[in-house]
Amino acid sequence: MKHQNGSESQKDQPQLTPISKLGEFGLIDHLTKNFHPKHPTTVKGIGDDAAVIDNRGKLTVVSTDMLVEGIHFDFIYTPLKYLGYKSVVVNLSDIYAMNATPKQITVSIAVSSRFTVEALDEFYAGVAEACHFYNVDLVGGDTSSSHKGMIISITAIGEANPDELVYRSGAQEKDYICVSGNLGAAYLGLQILEREKRLYLEDPNIKPELDTFPYLVERQLKPEARNDIMDILRNAQIKPTAMIDVSDGLSSDILHICKQSNVGCRLFEENIPLHAQTAEAAQTFNLSPITCALNGGEDYELLFTIPPHQINQLEGVHGIGIIGRITHPKEHPTLFTSGGQTHRLIAQGWRHV
Amino acid sequence: MKHQNGSESQKDQPQLTPISKLGEFGLIDHLTKNFHPKHPTTVKGIGDDAAVIDNRGKLTVVSTDMLVEGIHFDFIYTPLKYLGYKSVVVNLSDIYAMNATPKQITVSIAVSSRFTVEALDEFYAGVAEACHFYNVDLVGGDTSSSHKGMIISITAIGEANPDELVYRSGAQEKDYICVSGNLGAAYLGLQILEREKRLYLEDPNIKPELDTFPYLVERQLKPEARNDIMDILRNAQIKPTAMIDVSDGLSSDILHICKQSNVGCRLFEENIPLHAQTAEAAQTFNLSPITCALNGGEDYELLFTIPPHQINQLEGVHGIGIIGRITHPKEHPTLFTSGGQTHRLIAQGWRHV
Repeated sequence: MKHQNGSESQKDQPQLTPISKLGEFGLIDHLTKNFHPKHPTTVKGIGDDAAVIDNRGKLTVVSTDMLVEGIHFDFIYTPLKYLGYKSVVVNLSDIYAMNATPKQITVSIAVSSRFTVEALDEFYAGVAEACHFYNVDLVGGDTSSSHKGMIISITAIGEANPDELVYRSGAQEKDYICVSGNLGAAYLGLQILEREKRLYLEDPNIKPELDTFPYLVERQLKPEARNDIMDILRNAQIKPTAMIDVSDGLSSDILHICKQSNVGCRLFEENIPLHAQTAEAAQTFNLSPITCALNGGEDYELLFTIPPHQINQLEGVHGIGIIGRITHPKEHPTLFTSGGQTHRLIAQGWRHV
Repeated sequence: MKHQNGSESQKDQPQLTPISKLGEFGLIDHLTKNFHPKHPTTVKGIGDDAAVIDNRGKLTVVSTDMLVEGIHFDFIYTPLKYLGYKSVVVNLSDIYAMNATPKQITVSIAVSSRFTVEALDEFYAGVAEACHFYNVDLVGGDTSSSHKGMIISITAIGEANPDELVYRSGAQEKDYICVSGNLGAAYLGLQILEREKRLYLEDPNIKPELDTFPYLVERQLKPEARNDIMDILRNAQIKPTAMIDVSDGLSSDILHICKQSNVGCRLFEENIPLHAQTAEAAQTFNLSPITCALNGGEDYELLFTIPPHQINQLEGVHGIGIIGRITHPKEHPTLFTSGGQTHRLIAQGWRHV
């Protein structure tokens, strides 16, 4: 009865590869390397924020995400309503990162028997709030049982005109690298929540301290997608050459743009936008705020590149920072620190060069 | 730090409702009752085999499913490659059940650390085989960690012309009820696999007996979607008025059509198509084969209704059985047995009336 599955196969076969050896992006590349789109309507398959499907002119953009209890969220500090809201937002963020407009979502969940209908009502109340705020329709999904915990899978569907879509692959040498809002806040929000969780588990009578850095906690628990940025850029007559949303951290995400655009880049530490609370909280946790911005992730800000001749048009535009330049592909993606050092950017961090 | 979540909330609040009280379909209805599509492009939201989105004439059809290890599949007898294949097929079946053509899929998985890259390669080999056989493109997905086991979420995207789509809601009084292929085989295949699993767990040296009913085992492990049926019907110039794929069992699925079409129905036991192995294996397990057909599920055959004036066109069409008639909504959906009795059909079974 035994087949070549999971644990069963490990005793019989030598040279099996732990998934951790490839890492998340390596794993996706590995598993999907032999899949090549055959349909002319498949404009873009795997490899960007979302897939793109041609519908006689108008394009359909599709993105999907899976969230697992204990891996992506922790119920000790995550209200179910916020979880529903955030689950939708992180998917919509991928659609906005294509400069497309999300229109529909599907929501699938699996839950163990410890969840009540009232608990799921809370979750769906958050889903509904996000649908309302971002003007999208819930059009389908699936509910099923799980042995342990909650698993959420959301697919977002949007539309775009062909000439408006922005891929990760369009960055050109000399382009400016820009980012909306500020970075690292959600990561520090998570550190605060994890600290209070530890204190709570040691002594459930301790009142949690979440009021010192309310902005950071909110960025973690109830992030928003930047559906305003493309309007702002359109009004300034700026069209990004490449774009991605910052979900894995600035470092990983600029590397996605560099890899797919076949370019290098320079980021300048002093230009990376940080919220005042981010700088202050980083000190509390004895962390470098710039490391939080580079490696933290979950910011859901938009990271994009614009051609040099459009840079003057950014004057007077608030909430967008210019943080670097695109370079020749032979130049490794590099961080220039305020102290004059250079570090090579690597996925999930940086190392000395 | 406590919020109104899962287990945490149960002690504080009285009158919480276990999910089991609503059942799967009741739960979906409950959770989504306040979601109403706002976009004119959302042609059909929740409630059919798939959602329908208008793209200036051509329609996009979207369906999604989540599969959880230990709930929907068991690795003791499910080869990963078959699992990959089946995961795709069950989603495509929903698209075909709309009389649409699937074009793209996204595949998201979460796996625990016991899975190796080679194990996932096997899974994706099955995904690839299904993509090839059914001519669909893999266009996206997500991979993440789980604490326990494997969770799969697949979304299928198809297209259809507006005049070709078939919903669950179009059945009319006097329509004939038809089904492709035969029913109950996948359920009996599962019984065989479960029996061999028990024997294996008692004595791992016992050789599994899977050769007696190979058809049933294959129907369970490697089902196919009926992408041929609509071509067959089109050639016979028949257009179904309502259609659904048999995933939950004939009884549940005809009730979906009756509920959404606001009609009743009569099914005739002697006309329900059974494979010879289904009848024989049912005897082995001391089960009524008709109960397997009504309640078993996972057949992925197409169940549809056709207008009375088209019934003659079915002559000479192989592989489609006429199993009943649509009736006035006041008549409860009823099974007429070979012995002349009547049973009221209920979801997941039937009871005496």
